[in-house]
Amino acid sequence: MTRRILLINPNVTEAITDTMAAEARRVAAPDTEIVAVTARFGTLYIENRVEAAIAGHAVLDALAEHAAGCDAAIVSAFGDPGLAAAKEMMEIPVVGISEAAYLTAYTLGRRYTIVCLTERLGVWYRECAEEHGLAGRLVSVRPLAIPPDDITQAKEQAGRRLVAECLAAVEHDGAEVVVMGGGPVAGLAAEVAHEIPVPVLDGVSCGVRLAESLVDLAPAMATRGSFARPAAKPSSGLSPALAAWVERRER
Amino acid sequence: MTRRILLINPNVTEAITDTMAAEARRVAAPDTEIVAVTARFGTLYIENRVEAAIAGHAVLDALAEHAAGCDAAIVSAFGDPGLAAAKEMMEIPVVGISEAAYLTAYTLGRRYTIVCLTERLGVWYRECAEEHGLAGRLVSVRPLAIPPDDITQAKEQAGRRLVAECLAAVEHDGAEVVVMGGGPVAGLAAEVAHEIPVPVLDGVSCGVRLAESLVDLAPAMATRGSFARPAAKPSSGLSPALAAWVERRER
Amino acid sequence: MTRRILLINPNVTEAITDTMAAEARRVAAPDTEIVAVTARFGTLYIENRVEAAIAGHAVLDALAEHAAGCDAAIVSAFGDPGLAAAKEMMEIPVVGISEAAYLTAYTLGRRYTIVCLTERLGVWYRECAEEHGLAGRLVSVRPLAIPPDDITQAKEQAGRRLVAECLAAVEHDGAEVVVMGGGPVAGLAAEVAHEIPVPVLDGVSCGVRLAESLVDLAPAMATRGSFARPAAKPSSGLSPALAAWVERRER
Amino acid sequence: MTRRILLINPNVTEAITDTMAAEARRVAAPDTEIVAVTARFGTLYIENRVEAAIAGHAVLDALAEHAAGCDAAIVSAFGDPGLAAAKEMMEIPVVGISEAAYLTAYTLGRRYTIVCLTERLGVWYRECAEEHGLAGRLVSVRPLAIPPDDITQAKEQAGRRLVAECLAAVEHDGAEVVVMGGGPVAGLAAEVAHEIPVPVLDGVSCGVRLAESLVDLAPAMATRGSFARPAAKPSSGLSPALAAWVERRER
Amino acid sequence: MTRRILLINPNVTEAITDTMAAEARRVAAPDTEIVAVTARFGTLYIENRVEAAIAGHAVLDALAEHAAGCDAAIVSAFGDPGLAAAKEMMEIPVVGISEAAYLTAYTLGRRYTIVCLTERLGVWYRECAEEHGLAGRLVSVRPLAIPPDDITQAKEQAGRRLVAECLAAVEHDGAEVVVMGGGPVAGLAAEVAHEIPVPVLDGVSCGVRLAESLVDLAPAMATRGSFARPAAKPSSGLSPALAAWVERRER
Amino acid sequence: MTRRILLINPNVTEAITDTMAAEARRVAAPDTEIVAVTARFGTLYIENRVEAAIAGHAVLDALAEHAAGCDAAIVSAFGDPGLAAAKEMMEIPVVGISEAAYLTAYTLGRRYTIVCLTERLGVWYRECAEEHGLAGRLVSVRPLAIPPDDITQAKEQAGRRLVAECLAAVEHDGAEVVVMGGGPVAGLAAEVAHEIPVPVLDGVSCGVRLAESLVDLAPAMATRGSFARPAAKPSSGLSPALAAWVERRER
Repeated sequence: MTRRILLINPNVTEAITDTMAAEARRVAAPDTEIVAVTARFGTLYIENRVEAAIAGHAVLDALAEHAAGCDAAIVSAFGDPGLAAAKEMMEIPVVGISEAAYLTAYTLGRRYTIVCLTERLGVWYRECAEEHGLAGRLVSVRPLAIPPDDITQAKEQAGRRLVAECLAAVEHDGAEVVVMGGGPVAGLAAEVAHEIPVPVLDGVSCGVRLAESLVDLAPAMATRGSFARPAAKPSSGLSPALAAWVERRER
Repeated sequence: MTRRILLINPNVTEAITDTMAAEARRVAAPDTEIVAVTARFGTLYIENRVEAAIAGHAVLDALAEHAAGCDAAIVSAFGDPGLAAAKEMMEIPVVGISEAAYLTAYTLGRRYTIVCLTERLGVWYRECAEEHGLAGRLVSVRPLAIPPDDITQAKEQAGRRLVAECLAAVEHDGAEVVVMGGGPVAGLAAEVAHEIPVPVLDGVSCGVRLAESLVDLAPAMATRGSFARPAAKPSSGLSPALAAWVERRER
Repeated sequence: MTRRILLINPNVTEAITDTMAAEARRVAAPDTEIVAVTARFGTLYIENRVEAAIAGHAVLDALAEHAAGCDAAIVSAFGDPGLAAAKEMMEIPVVGISEAAYLTAYTLGRRYTIVCLTERLGVWYRECAEEHGLAGRLVSVRPLAIPPDDITQAKEQAGRRLVAECLAAVEHDGAEVVVMGGGPVAGLAAEVAHEIPVPVLDGVSCGVRLAESLVDLAPAMATRGSFARPAAKPSSGLSPALAAWVERRER
Repeated sequence: MTRRILLINPNVTEAITDTMAAEARRVAAPDTEIVAVTARFGTLYIENRVEAAIAGHAVLDALAEHAAGCDAAIVSAFGDPGLAAAKEMMEIPVVGISEAAYLTAYTLGRRYTIVCLTERLGVWYRECAEEHGLAGRLVSVRPLAIPPDDITQAKEQAGRRLVAECLAAVEHDGAEVVVMGGGPVAGLAAEVAHEIPVPVLDGVSCGVRLAESLVDLAPAMATRGSFARPAAKPSSGLSPALAAWVERRER
Repeated sequence: MTRRILLINPNVTEAITDTMAAEARRVAAPDTEIVAVTARFGTLYIENRVEAAIAGHAVLDALAEHAAGCDAAIVSAFGDPGLAAAKEMMEIPVVGISEAAYLTAYTLGRRYTIVCLTERLGVWYRECAEEHGLAGRLVSVRPLAIPPDDITQAKEQAGRRLVAECLAAVEHDGAEVVVMGGGPVAGLAAEVAHEIPVPVLDGVSCGVRLAESLVDLAPAMATRGSFARPAAKPSSGLSPALAAWVERRER
Repeated sequence: MTRRILLINPNVTEAITDTMAAEARRVAAPDTEIVAVTARFGTLYIENRVEAAIAGHAVLDALAEHAAGCDAAIVSAFGDPGLAAAKEMMEIPVVGISEAAYLTAYTLGRRYTIVCLTERLGVWYRECAEEHGLAGRLVSVRPLAIPPDDITQAKEQAGRRLVAECLAAVEHDGAEVVVMGGGPVAGLAAEVAHEIPVPVLDGVSCGVRLAESLVDLAPAMATRGSFARPAAKPSSGLSPALAAWVERRER
């Protein structure tokens, strides 16, 4: 394989890992291998700031455990928990699926909308766009009025209503691109693209393409500034893998 | 006691907890009790995004363990790791020491500067101001050119140089308020205020005053919107206290 | 008394002074004395830029006349007429009731709404938030469609409709905090807080708490920069007290 | 005369009124009459927020006294004290000399600098640009390091140093337009334009041209919204002319 | 004649040139001559980015051909195609009709709306405001739901509906000024001003007044910075007039 | 070949086309074919707004002539002349080399700097970032103090000085990513990456990767909104290919 890409699901739910890995493998280049892992601790499905804060730690933990031998990593929960920390920690490129979708939206239009499963997710996704400096072209966030009962069945339970929100975004908000937010709906964008009169993007597929591009561009990673690998420091209470990284990361 | 305020040190270093607790008790109202606790896991001193991400989890962990019976809580590391999540989690007011200093700076002038110990801290403190929506009046961040060897001895090792940066901020950046950033220098602002021709603020003392004010104002906490307490959700791998909060937090 | 706080009503209506002073005394600490005064010139109730411009002068006039012996001052008209000038003029902390409510809103949520009595007040309150650099999180301003006949009876005549606007702000604008704007409704927020699912703030009580905090923090006031006391300068046509301040303020 | 334009000096110094009126008459169209008046109360020369707040009232007072029969008015102190209130008050166009210079700068380049006499003036002029929504292209403010002793002699005492700041603005700040701030230097821009490699603007001449243009365009003034003339309201302590305007302004 | 102003229609439609020239002559000062020319290449009516990009070149081409002997030029298509390039190219002032309307709106209120003929024009006009740094006060853009069949007959076919949008802008968007966008409706604003309770502006008349003001102010044009005339450079494929300008423009 | 990508040089200089095509081919995937074309009209090297306005038209002209059979197109002059129009015109993805570099910078750091050959290019590149909504993280633009004599020899004549500016950007501006601006220096970034302690990006290689990603993601292009292909419209004076596109583009 030319490229080995680590896909980290920051939720503790394997079913969501499987959904996202399937979409990742569907779009990946033939010479890309996707290594999918699930967070060691956290919650069933990340939906708010509390769960995202826990997940930020879990992402770093997973990187310390699994990144060896990989060429890039994807933080694969929409909302990108722990992403900036992960970029700072690693000497390989790390991308988030929100980040990748937002950046792709910037090249395809001037106004984009995020369609998502719940109101609270919508708040988080918007704050994520702000943190990335990519909220200037975000014209609306459209959560479903009534979320699906079972988020792992989101595509089946809520797919038609998500399409309706996409259409409303075009009609009422002037959206020129729609981002379909949320890991559990990975792959839906491609299935429904023909129904929506503007480009509709999926975080996982954008994330895979962005990760592949960065592997191929191979920019030298930072050795100065706030994204250089931090100096070693004593720690306590961390997992063996993360403690090893924190304490012994000499250069 | 009228008010019981939990002060959480998100670093794992007890000496820093002690320094901050001492300053907190010095400025607290006579009828305020300060309960100081140290993070159960993390690093010696938080200085970058990796360590802040771990600390965000540690703050929630400490709240789950220690907040019962308290009227308010203070996230007492400059940079406010996990603050938004903590506000969302709790039914008592939670404030950060950066947040408190920045808000106080807004009422005392139109342009403020953050003086701090290292370049990387400066990046983090600025991002913290941006996240809080309070960077519009931040005119500069001034880290020391050479950090102190031992951060727990920062006041002794670097006090004079921090004062010099405060003066430079007034002279060259037009600062109308100076924020002395960093938990280890808690109390320094009061000691050197007479040398600096504009107000100079300390996060811990601002944080104590803000927490006391909120206890007394006693606003009803949110039961709607993104700061309402999240619904219960299955978890795995969390500490018993945090798991209990995440899984059983019915309302 | 530990703290003596001057509350200036920039309107010429004593009844509004009384309403605000009552709320101020209700929330003040036991060792705080509130000294309430009414503007010497101006209009019945400030509602637009013309009246606010006159009131800005009246506030300075009142400070020159009454501030001696006080530890802090509150400009107690929502909209904060003359506030920046008052801060520049005095060697004690001066806060505005809008400013105090907006700053408190920043610590309690990410999106706030101002509910108020008339459309024109709404415009002024928004411009006030912009001047303070605190409009970034202001998501909406909601004036009553039909203002009360008698603004001194606003609580009685319009209280229910103000509550309805608060609820609409949460429902439609995603408000996470509501600020109840306007001196004549001082105290209403506390009375109706249990009906509104997010924190609701009152300018006067936030202003008292902020003033008390600043008295206790006791930051050294500016002797450099644009908030240092201006140099003496000849004047003409001013009241004796203000002229004395303007012409003889040597340092 | 086709147009009669009221030029209000918000300072109480007649000599500055004369300087500005002379420049206004030099650039005015042949069929424009300039009616110059001086504030009835205030300070020798407005330089800070305190003096600007007093001047805001004085400008409205002067309008109430002198605007009858005029086609437009100019608030002729750089910093535009009371300008928004004046626009709201009058049924004729009112422009400020800062506003006029900033708007003209927007059409002549993408980056402008304000050169001015003192640091404190610089702060005020910048805040004025922010209030007008015209600070986005303001790249720097350059006050003299040492102000002139006698501000009414500013052109003579400080003319060469002001030119040096203009050149520095072009060289170091990338200024594409320079605004020469301050009423007392009215006319200097035209005298030194040949020495400065980008357009250099004077507030008074820009103000006269803008006022003339608005008289000729004759837009219908607002009868709705926040710039419509306010309703009558009881007042106390105002000058007879201003009280008459405030209390009897029926429509 | 005192002033000779070149009015360039960047569309290839003579009828629109005539409409705009008539309005320009109606409002011009008696001693101003309007020289109206039509683009040598391009499309019937500019409505999108493709057509605007072609028109940008056509405007420069027309300037090279026709500007000799003129004192100022007006780019007379709402949206200002090629305006920044035209300013850079010429040693006389060049203004755009959008720019002129937006700048005038800034002096007449704090919130303005653009009313226009089609949705796509609305997008372009908004981007134009952003490019000019004048979108901060743009509160809405209101295109007609159904555009007129024949854009040269826009005033007749759509005049009433444009007025309805102006009223809706005041009622629903809080517009304090309305800009009537689009060259083909030149003159409509003056005809309907009495029906609209806030100032309503027309680009052509604002453009003429702004151009006249700049001719009279006569600022020295830039010889440094990004608006100085570019150095000569080899070219190929340009019209003889534009090639002559590009290749031989020594200074 | 899997992907056929049109690379358009908007300058008329074949040597620059060759330099950029070489770099494009070096980084392209094995199954990507680069079709390089040179603008039919324009200037030797685009450096200012006049030349960029002409180039915008030339880019559309080249697309009309050469895009048939291609899967994506690259506007290959740093500054992206005509890019938004090109996106609107085509049913295949079109990317710019500035855009691609800026988007890549966003994923690799929080602060980026553009290093470039001349001051005027720097102004243009900054305006390009603003137009793309990607200037929020641009901390500085660093042109060479003295440009190379022959821009086609820029790498040889100025390579070392460009590296020095990159280092200065890291040292003085806190740049976390450096973008090497300008088509003639295509390929330099890869050659000098080992000397610069943060990632350094080249527009052409970023552009190729972005174009390839978009071809593979294959988003449905817009059929609604401002990036949908415009309706047919009469034209005059255009090249046969462009006229054919403008007049007959039915859907």
